[in-house]
Amino acid sequence: MLDIAPPGPIDDDIRPGEKTVALPEGFDAGLYFIGRIRTPWTERGSCPRRGDAEEGPVCTLEIDPRWAEALVGVEECPRLQVLYWMNRARRDLVLQSPRHDGPTRGTFALRSPVRPNPIASSVVRLVGVDGLKVQVRGLDCLDGTPLVDLKVHHG
Amino acid sequence: MLDIAPPGPIDDDIRPGEKTVALPEGFDAGLYFIGRIRTPWTERGSCPRRGDAEEGPVCTLEIDPRWAEALVGVEECPRLQVLYWMNRARRDLVLQSPRHDGPTRGTFALRSPVRPNPIASSVVRLVGVDGLKVQVRGLDCLDGTPLVDLKVHHG
Repeated sequence: MLDIAPPGPIDDDIRPGEKTVALPEGFDAGLYFIGRIRTPWTERGSCPRRGDAEEGPVCTLEIDPRWAEALVGVEECPRLQVLYWMNRARRDLVLQSPRHDGPTRGTFALRSPVRPNPIASSVVRLVGVDGLKVQVRGLDCLDGTPLVDLKVHHG
Repeated sequence: MLDIAPPGPIDDDIRPGEKTVALPEGFDAGLYFIGRIRTPWTERGSCPRRGDAEEGPVCTLEIDPRWAEALVGVEECPRLQVLYWMNRARRDLVLQSPRHDGPTRGTFALRSPVRPNPIASSVVRLVGVDGLKVQVRGLDCLDGTPLVDLKVHHG
């Protein structure tokens, strides 16, 4: 039995054609948030639909001090893959009707944050590393979004 | 307080130059495994270092029946991003000395499965969908690896 912090507010309404399922009773694995993401966006409506690694604004990955040494060498990684936790997305939709992205489809045929495990993935361009702060371009998420992983991206 | 299944056997030794940190006392979020991955590899030593989406063997994502409808439309996604849980990797290394990949570096400058949240990500090529089975090329993991997410990959 392990403590898991309660999720933040969930703010996804159901749209026509969408369908939910019952979630499993327990979790199969636990995540540690390794930091937070600082972005210019404080409301979901203002977030871009996809980040722009070339022209997008600089965002900052603030790494928890526990993981400081895991940043050794990141300054030499021009591209990074960032995984982050969309903590305001519901997890029980199997069919979704995207507002701006075509007809109703299954969750696995979409990149919507609404999914059983709301992990978003973006490939970003490194701007610089300053202590525990990693500056990048190419993110699309709300300010304060929990960071799950950061890894070099090849190619 | 939530049940989390115990991890499987952890089989990573520490190499020269590597460094561990104490893990946090609790988890911040929980994952649901949405299925399992069937691959030809039953020992870690036989897994490729990176999957090959063009020439690699066909592997099968076996989706849990709960999520069946989330597959609607996946048959029209030529490329998919697969997230999976490297459940045999230790989570406490901040510096790593890869066996075949250069000098000691920080975990976030590597794609090693050994990381605070051992989530691997691969872009794969769709071969076909048959009910709850999604056949793809481009994976690199052990047979039986837990599946965390599946989403269309653009570009």
